[in-house]
Amino acid sequence: MRFTVTYRIRAGDLAEARARADAIALEQTVEIPRAVVPPGYIEDEILGRVEETGTLSEGVFQAKISYSPDSAGEEFSQFLNVVFGNSSIQQGIRVTGVEPGETMLARFPGPRFGIKGIRARCGRATGGMIAPVLKPMGQPPAAFAALAAGAVRGGADIIKEDHGLAGQAAAPFEARVEAVAQAVAKANAEYGRSVIYIPNLSGPADQIEARLRFAKEAGAGGVIVMPGLLGFGLVHRIAQDAGLDLPVMTHPSFLGPWVLSPDTGIDHGVIFGTLQRLAGADISVFPNVGGRFGFSAPECLQIADACRAPDGPGAAMLPSPGGGMSVERAADMVRMYGQDVVYLLGGSLLADPPNIHLAVSAMRKAVDAAES
Amino acid sequence: MRFTVTYRIRAGDLAEARARADAIALEQTVEIPRAVVPPGYIEDEILGRVEETGTLSEGVFQAKISYSPDSAGEEFSQFLNVVFGNSSIQQGIRVTGVEPGETMLARFPGPRFGIKGIRARCGRATGGMIAPVLKPMGQPPAAFAALAAGAVRGGADIIKEDHGLAGQAAAPFEARVEAVAQAVAKANAEYGRSVIYIPNLSGPADQIEARLRFAKEAGAGGVIVMPGLLGFGLVHRIAQDAGLDLPVMTHPSFLGPWVLSPDTGIDHGVIFGTLQRLAGADISVFPNVGGRFGFSAPECLQIADACRAPDGPGAAMLPSPGGGMSVERAADMVRMYGQDVVYLLGGSLLADPPNIHLAVSAMRKAVDAAES
Repeated sequence: MRFTVTYRIRAGDLAEARARADAIALEQTVEIPRAVVPPGYIEDEILGRVEETGTLSEGVFQAKISYSPDSAGEEFSQFLNVVFGNSSIQQGIRVTGVEPGETMLARFPGPRFGIKGIRARCGRATGGMIAPVLKPMGQPPAAFAALAAGAVRGGADIIKEDHGLAGQAAAPFEARVEAVAQAVAKANAEYGRSVIYIPNLSGPADQIEARLRFAKEAGAGGVIVMPGLLGFGLVHRIAQDAGLDLPVMTHPSFLGPWVLSPDTGIDHGVIFGTLQRLAGADISVFPNVGGRFGFSAPECLQIADACRAPDGPGAAMLPSPGGGMSVERAADMVRMYGQDVVYLLGGSLLADPPNIHLAVSAMRKAVDAAES
Repeated sequence: MRFTVTYRIRAGDLAEARARADAIALEQTVEIPRAVVPPGYIEDEILGRVEETGTLSEGVFQAKISYSPDSAGEEFSQFLNVVFGNSSIQQGIRVTGVEPGETMLARFPGPRFGIKGIRARCGRATGGMIAPVLKPMGQPPAAFAALAAGAVRGGADIIKEDHGLAGQAAAPFEARVEAVAQAVAKANAEYGRSVIYIPNLSGPADQIEARLRFAKEAGAGGVIVMPGLLGFGLVHRIAQDAGLDLPVMTHPSFLGPWVLSPDTGIDHGVIFGTLQRLAGADISVFPNVGGRFGFSAPECLQIADACRAPDGPGAAMLPSPGGGMSVERAADMVRMYGQDVVYLLGGSLLADPPNIHLAVSAMRKAVDAAES
């Protein structure tokens, strides 16, 4: 069964839009002129197929193009390469939908844990989840460990590292992950909690595998992956590893330009929802409305809807709006996102680091109050 | 020594631009409000520093922000994360320059081979180089091997795989690379040439290392990396490996939105020139003016200039315009790019695959004639 990509296309008229769609179907597969496409298997199966084209509004059209699973093979990065590799460099083409179809879904079955699995690991059956962020960079491992212990005490569900914590000399990956994992385990035991700690996976390309195993063995409860910097294939590789059995949280760093122009790139819900879910992320971080970034409420809801759509692809995952959350805004956020959500809590918790438990606890109470 | 990033910023006035620059300096490093930045090392060293701001034109400003090498550490992906990770998600900010400075240059020294090294390996001391592309996907290894042998016979300098050749069942990576490498070696011996074969590096994230070693052992003369899909860190990892000793060609797939809007993303010359060069690419592929993509001549020249700038970073590398090259346009292209360039030759060679040597030879003659 072929997979289908929906493109929104700028063109002067429907005929031009159809010509652009034909060009996309060539570009994303055989990448040669139509006249020299070899007959048989390549023309009949490999070549992208324009299934339908239509008009959305003046100068704006839509095309659905289907592709053979054979063109993508088993590799998630190659799947994205077919979806929008070279055509991403064209003006006036935006991906607005990706339907994997049964064959690709069997290869990319989606989140290993999803909402249910993450809730089970954190021990929070219902209600919005809160995830304090360990930062700023430049501190030693012990400082992050102390923040993490305070966050457990205060009622966190997940402890997330800042995406900027990498291999800095002040807190190298291994030393930091070990110290924080131990602090979280100790605090979990002390307060009877099951908070999961999610370090930021980073490193030279040939050390990512070793760091992944290190994090698992040190007791991390998941990893953050930045697909913009490390590739979506890494998300898929982790999600499909039953032995590793490690949740993945994806972070939007270095993905900004994909969504910022309405005429190019990929829709918010597709790149931060559908594609993350298909790659196998359990939690997708995105910039929240009202925070430091300019996403609108409809854009954020498009992402949340794609993360949680009951018809897939794969298990429903947790949207995780970052920024813009506060005690004062908790009621608004609960109204907007409902309960299956992970709120990132950043700089607002750090006014008084030794008392971070009070700030986390205040946020927990605000979310609980808004939900009751 | 700190590294410096130049940002072009949209703002209502200079005061607002300065405020945006201050926000970038925070966002890219500590990611917490200014008021809670810990004094000492973090405030003095880690925090980004706005070095200067100025007005470019009405509503358009420029800021230079310096960052500590400590914030990036030794990892190229983390370096990019500091350059533009989260701020890439802001409207109205574009990276227009990256100056690594001595400290980062020692960590990221640039291309291992560069123009001189690639010329030495190909045995072409002067003149534009030509690189036929093996495609379309869907063919068996023997078909690619036959095309490659014909391209050697015709006078190719480099044989490049299409970026869409991955692990498809019709031509799995190992079988394909082995078949083509053998065909190129045999043709090189037969025709007294030293054409290098550059397969497309692909695969599940945890098999990239094995495929890299396989390619090397099979006799590949380099690898293509798509940083948009596999990460810039992979380019750096390969370039810095003296034992592997393998040239890297980078491909722009899945990087389109970075350049398409003038108000966001990263300038053409920076993302396809400076950053590829700093990562260690020896050859940077980009869409040529007059081809299927909309890059202008000034945009293409900005890339070529950044690839070959005599003052670095690191050794000069080869710009490789893809598309838009033909016997008819050869004189124009030679006038535009000079001699230190690799022309990709794609679908235009495939009208008569068994006689690809004639098409390659015609292109070689056209380039030679234009240069003489």
